[in-house]
Amino acid sequence: MELKLFIPGPVNVDQEILEKLATPQIAHRSKTATQLQRDISEKLQKLMYTENLIILSTTSGSGIMEMAIKSCTKKRAAVFSVGAFGDRWYKMAVSNNIPADRFKSEAGMPTTPEMVEEALKTGLYDVVTVTHNETSAGIMNPVYEIGEVIKKYPNIIYLVDAVSSLAGAKIEVDKCGIDICLTSTQKCIGLPPGLSMASVSEKAIKRAETVENKGFYLDLLNVVNRVKKDYQYPTTPSTPHMWALDFQLNRILNEEGLENRFNRHTELANVVRAWAQKHFALYALEGYRSNTVTTILNTKGNSVVDLNKELATRGYMISNGYGDLKEKAFRIAHMADRKLEDLQALLIEIEDIWKL
Amino acid sequence: MELKLFIPGPVNVDQEILEKLATPQIAHRSKTATQLQRDISEKLQKLMYTENLIILSTTSGSGIMEMAIKSCTKKRAAVFSVGAFGDRWYKMAVSNNIPADRFKSEAGMPTTPEMVEEALKTGLYDVVTVTHNETSAGIMNPVYEIGEVIKKYPNIIYLVDAVSSLAGAKIEVDKCGIDICLTSTQKCIGLPPGLSMASVSEKAIKRAETVENKGFYLDLLNVVNRVKKDYQYPTTPSTPHMWALDFQLNRILNEEGLENRFNRHTELANVVRAWAQKHFALYALEGYRSNTVTTILNTKGNSVVDLNKELATRGYMISNGYGDLKEKAFRIAHMADRKLEDLQALLIEIEDIWKL
Repeated sequence: MELKLFIPGPVNVDQEILEKLATPQIAHRSKTATQLQRDISEKLQKLMYTENLIILSTTSGSGIMEMAIKSCTKKRAAVFSVGAFGDRWYKMAVSNNIPADRFKSEAGMPTTPEMVEEALKTGLYDVVTVTHNETSAGIMNPVYEIGEVIKKYPNIIYLVDAVSSLAGAKIEVDKCGIDICLTSTQKCIGLPPGLSMASVSEKAIKRAETVENKGFYLDLLNVVNRVKKDYQYPTTPSTPHMWALDFQLNRILNEEGLENRFNRHTELANVVRAWAQKHFALYALEGYRSNTVTTILNTKGNSVVDLNKELATRGYMISNGYGDLKEKAFRIAHMADRKLEDLQALLIEIEDIWKL
Repeated sequence: MELKLFIPGPVNVDQEILEKLATPQIAHRSKTATQLQRDISEKLQKLMYTENLIILSTTSGSGIMEMAIKSCTKKRAAVFSVGAFGDRWYKMAVSNNIPADRFKSEAGMPTTPEMVEEALKTGLYDVVTVTHNETSAGIMNPVYEIGEVIKKYPNIIYLVDAVSSLAGAKIEVDKCGIDICLTSTQKCIGLPPGLSMASVSEKAIKRAETVENKGFYLDLLNVVNRVKKDYQYPTTPSTPHMWALDFQLNRILNEEGLENRFNRHTELANVVRAWAQKHFALYALEGYRSNTVTTILNTKGNSVVDLNKELATRGYMISNGYGDLKEKAFRIAHMADRKLEDLQALLIEIEDIWKL
């Protein structure tokens, strides 16, 4: 039995998309491969509201995050963190011997434009990283307002982790001034894990040209140069994911439509929040709550582990709290092609199990 | 129309394998994920004749190559190259600021145990890299004999790129003393591109514990520690490939059988070599010719590009020569689940087109 996954990725994937993974094999140096990547690029540019170059990476989202921070930091990175995935940017900097400072917000609080302004005023930094949607906390950070601050500092490369939000919330990359906006397949886009993608500004490329020792596989410039040449990759990419991505982008852009998709995510988020506030409490500050995953404080102190065990027998899976919040919170994700009736059915099951 | 690919990867993949990519999604932190990785590990240990730990990497083969060399080189790497993929090890070292020397063989010649011995006698090195099967040249290097030399130098970590040979030629990892033997899905194993895998010795792990600034995504230790804990990964792996790999390993081990599979590859190689020697000449020295891809000198000076164009209309694709050999040679790969009758049909088409 396939569990209905209400975890913040991987997500359930519709059968007609999965079948695209089984597309016959092609040579990765063929015109067919070039055309496929060109098609994907044009569609991702629409999804991201950008004219920037699009690249794919045969890695999880973490791979392309590391590619971004190690290829663009020449001086020092200002890493803004509201949870585990914000901390991951910092870990990546440290493990690559890249100078960086981490600015953590209080529990449940977002990264604010004021925090960014204060850091940038020092003149110490040439990179800012922001987690658009922090899955560990259920917080969505104000990437538009932060972008307005960053525009005042032309030396800054603005990196945004949109792994768990792109295609579930509107991110106008060019309007926000995001230099690298990155995501991966297994969250709001609604594909299986195994591929990540990013938009890359010319400013980010120019910076990467000045950074040394970027390695090979995660060297942004290696990838960008090959994509610019013939829409191909320095090494063999995961073509099964590329076929599925191209197909799913058609569904997103042409069948559902972007605004409808974002609105559906908002509707699902509103339903979960209302339910959570009736029975429990929300972790994230109002105004900064995620459109794609809701972190609910476990105010009744029931066992989340036991809940998930019982839910599994009924065909569902949710997530416990992340890290320190493991039993103090639980998380319900509402992303990708999830339908309202499935979410409502899940909430009824939880009410039944916990006698709410 | 799906072309019959006689290029050195990607390869054609049987429909029943492709369908496994479409397995329903699972949580990558579930017991199902743990069981899947455990199953794959046991089967890959058999395929590699090793008791070493098995890891997967959601990257192409190049990703796991870079993981190996950057995680294991503390002093200096001796990189033995007989072509483009040998050179790639060196590029990876240089781009990561890892001290390394490259030892290139003459055109068409293998890496010899004597070359390795001479380098190791200097005491300069703590890593040796060897390309088992160099697809650019059609050369298979003597990894057993090189292993015997390396055993005399207990400080050396022995890294072998078996990307285009594992499952197409017998590599007894433990007998050879290989510390990291790595491969990827889209060559002799017969799956689509998008995942790579390696066996890792305790000696390699101990070395990695002493190496600094290994980064995050390609840090061997990050991966090894998580696999040792619960057969899971630090980041979300490509589960579609894992399902297909598990299924195909059953076919390889239980349906065809390892010895049969190696023998089939040898039989195909013998047919191509005999044909090539009748009409052309072989690039690689006798005794070091690849079991999985044959590089044929284009002694008649016909256009390989035109040949491939005509072959495409007949449903086939071969490869031109690599790099400098682009029009001076052509390559016919015979790997994965390729059948003798398909190869024979290809050779007849080439004879017809080139009036041989």
